[in-house]
Amino acid sequence: MPGPSVVVVYSHPYPRRSRAGRALLAAVEELPFVSVRSLYDLYPDFAIDVEAEQRAMTDADVVVWQTPFYWYGVPSLLHHWFEKVLTEGWAYGDEASSLCKKPLQWVTTTGTPRSAYRPEGIHKHRFEDFIPPIQQTAQFCGMRWEPPLVVHGVYDMSDDELAAHGRTYRTRVETLLAASGASDG
Amino acid sequence: MPGPSVVVVYSHPYPRRSRAGRALLAAVEELPFVSVRSLYDLYPDFAIDVEAEQRAMTDADVVVWQTPFYWYGVPSLLHHWFEKVLTEGWAYGDEASSLCKKPLQWVTTTGTPRSAYRPEGIHKHRFEDFIPPIQQTAQFCGMRWEPPLVVHGVYDMSDDELAAHGRTYRTRVETLLAASGASDG
Repeated sequence: MPGPSVVVVYSHPYPRRSRAGRALLAAVEELPFVSVRSLYDLYPDFAIDVEAEQRAMTDADVVVWQTPFYWYGVPSLLHHWFEKVLTEGWAYGDEASSLCKKPLQWVTTTGTPRSAYRPEGIHKHRFEDFIPPIQQTAQFCGMRWEPPLVVHGVYDMSDDELAAHGRTYRTRVETLLAASGASDG
Repeated sequence: MPGPSVVVVYSHPYPRRSRAGRALLAAVEELPFVSVRSLYDLYPDFAIDVEAEQRAMTDADVVVWQTPFYWYGVPSLLHHWFEKVLTEGWAYGDEASSLCKKPLQWVTTTGTPRSAYRPEGIHKHRFEDFIPPIQQTAQFCGMRWEPPLVVHGVYDMSDDELAAHGRTYRTRVETLLAASGASDG
């Protein structure tokens, strides 16, 4: 019987070039109960293995979507993953319960600072105004939406600051896993 | 000198199987000033020809994004198009003005009726709550955001009703083109 597990669906188009993405991932990927699925490494041609992805989701006690914030949402390959993996009858619809009640943690990074996300800022909206599509995608599948972990301003952030956010991230997944009631049996 | 033009970026994963998408497109595609770029036909492997897309956008007086509404946003290939085509220095940033002031019309279809889009409905939000990412993507590039043309409830819609929405769509693009000040020389 497998132990408790956190599956991090890491969706960064340049998984190794991203300083912020790598720093955050480094804080959790060595934890024994974490497995990482780097979508752009697995599927550079966008041809997602739906069965493998659904199996990984079924086995997960906690799911993380880790992404940069791209055009006010998740990168296209994760959106494609939504379209292909979250199928009717498996993820939602009558009696579909594959993801039901699993905690979903969205972890995201923005280049610009938080102050850019307000009506007078260059993004003209609060950051919160861009969350509904992502939150409702998770909730439509019955997942338990956790407050997003949003790291703003990564362009100008020091390595030390990134590492501190990484520690927050690690604590978050540890806490979620403990609260999920998963045990290693 | 080319005449005035409307470019419809049609982003439907099943461009020919979609009854609603086809019916709406049929209402505009024969207009002499309309050209259609069916992204999933052009780029089934997601390998977008950025130069060709930018050239088409440069030549357009009015731009339409026609999509089904998928996971509370645009289909993944259009999001990928945002990421690849709307580049810094071309679409936004210092002195980038390629798309500046071009009217942007989003045309979208939902399977479920409008009543599903409210806090008590299955989508838990008003439809308007899902618009900011798409609107702000256009506006970040300096485009003029037009009120979206949203056709709800296409699963149960008759062909006659779809045709009526198609006529609204056609009038909309004709009006936008006339207002854009484009002339055929």
